[in-house]
Amino acid sequence: MLENLPDTVKVFEVGPRDGLQNESRQVATADKVRLIEALVAAGLKHIEITSFVSPKWIPQLADGLAVAQSLKLPSDVVASALVPNLKGYQVASQAGLKEIALFMSATETHSHKNINKAVDEALVTLSEVARQAKQDGRIVRAYLSVVFVCPYEGKVDPRQVVQLVKRLAEVGVDEISLGDTIGAATPKQVLELLKLLSAEVALSRLALHFHDTRGTALANVVAGLESGIRTFDASVGGMGGCPYAPGASGNLATEDLVYLLHESGIETGIDLERLIECGLLAEEILEKRLPGRYLQACLSGRARQERVKAGQ
Amino acid sequence: MLENLPDTVKVFEVGPRDGLQNESRQVATADKVRLIEALVAAGLKHIEITSFVSPKWIPQLADGLAVAQSLKLPSDVVASALVPNLKGYQVASQAGLKEIALFMSATETHSHKNINKAVDEALVTLSEVARQAKQDGRIVRAYLSVVFVCPYEGKVDPRQVVQLVKRLAEVGVDEISLGDTIGAATPKQVLELLKLLSAEVALSRLALHFHDTRGTALANVVAGLESGIRTFDASVGGMGGCPYAPGASGNLATEDLVYLLHESGIETGIDLERLIECGLLAEEILEKRLPGRYLQACLSGRARQERVKAGQ
Repeated sequence: MLENLPDTVKVFEVGPRDGLQNESRQVATADKVRLIEALVAAGLKHIEITSFVSPKWIPQLADGLAVAQSLKLPSDVVASALVPNLKGYQVASQAGLKEIALFMSATETHSHKNINKAVDEALVTLSEVARQAKQDGRIVRAYLSVVFVCPYEGKVDPRQVVQLVKRLAEVGVDEISLGDTIGAATPKQVLELLKLLSAEVALSRLALHFHDTRGTALANVVAGLESGIRTFDASVGGMGGCPYAPGASGNLATEDLVYLLHESGIETGIDLERLIECGLLAEEILEKRLPGRYLQACLSGRARQERVKAGQ
Repeated sequence: MLENLPDTVKVFEVGPRDGLQNESRQVATADKVRLIEALVAAGLKHIEITSFVSPKWIPQLADGLAVAQSLKLPSDVVASALVPNLKGYQVASQAGLKEIALFMSATETHSHKNINKAVDEALVTLSEVARQAKQDGRIVRAYLSVVFVCPYEGKVDPRQVVQLVKRLAEVGVDEISLGDTIGAATPKQVLELLKLLSAEVALSRLALHFHDTRGTALANVVAGLESGIRTFDASVGGMGGCPYAPGASGNLATEDLVYLLHESGIETGIDLERLIECGLLAEEILEKRLPGRYLQACLSGRARQERVKAGQ
């Protein structure tokens, strides 16, 4: 175990989109921009900055275009945004984003509950947008949700996931992010799915997207690393969840992921200390404690030091 | 990875001792008894029920003898208690416990800060009690703290840990629990230490005791399983931490551990649903939310169902 680790891993930050869309608090555009720029300063190179989904569905991200246009990003940072259809794509295009992210579910019931479409219909829409984005020279990412356990259908047949991943690869998606949407996967399931997938698609095109709902996220990351995955999604401070998935708590916290990777001798290009500052900024903006374990450990350590300084 | 999993794993519940001793709230004896009996009903067979450390140091567990004497336990349940010295051992003996647990640190600084003794001195006291307990036909467990990272000395040399484990085995300790006291270990470190240890002691005599301070606990459990460890400590709801270790948050939650094990096809004899009820009971007794991930996921799922029922 852990004998053939890569030198580097790509950390894909989803906090400003997947995190904020699931927080009830409305965040000011300027605060979103501040958070994203802090993430860039901490070394993140791949950031999903917003979504161009209808504000009727996700009012938290109604200011997507303003966020994109306000950002000053270095040329080596790839900003991405979630896009549901061609209409959303036009806005992403107007915002000048290098990358877009599409989404669909691995199960019929989740697909219906989430976007009121069958899996095949969702794939048609997704393919349409992917084709246009590729024509325009953009990078295309796709999220495939509930690939391990569906809150409505239970354990998901990995062969069903393999078929969908193949179809996503065929329509030109560059990176497919496999989502454990309700955070119920365990390493065994991760190993099994990736073993099947590795026979069908290049693992370099896959990313893993874990939630830490049951404490298994980093164990699953280890299973992903073992299987040859080199891209992992995470959300600063563990912001967000999934409003359509009963029982879902936060995303895997970026700090927890980066701590594990660095301690395993894997480079990420991220400065963990500065990343913690981003977590603190996110807490300040949202005016609440975030669930990231490493973040909370730092906070309790600091609070203790403050008490010691104050002679308490 | 995960190809040679055992059929069963022993889960050692430390909540009523390691959990409660680190909670600021004073819990009534009857509530402690209620919690322990609920854990037994959930299928736990190995439970550390209290400690016989001076109430000056741990006032939370001053009623240890009363707890032990009030319990009605089936004959297949092994109740253990933490004992610091011969005086504490006499009380454990009076309480009729089948097993006792001793403790020491793997580093000089932690040992001094924790019990104001050098490591060698601590080993002398521990050996004295272990000898007496073995003579009396008791099972002897020993906790070795800060085996991966010390809050004062940083990364701990695994060879130092191997030497101490060997000495603990020589003085007749039956089970040695290796503690990641501040929850800073990652799988790589776990694999390295256990590889060295496996050349010197039977792995069946070792247990792993993780804290989930940085979200790595279950990843470390997987590394432990891979290395051949078959006993893991955990605390219901993730109660407790370590008052002498800056930055330490809760123990690995028993529910999270059991979820991972069951989903990996490993039996524990524990009923996860009933274990969740124990977590709820612990929250009720302590009048606070506990950090266990799986417990909180169940609670938020239930709260959502209640809202649905109420038509909100």
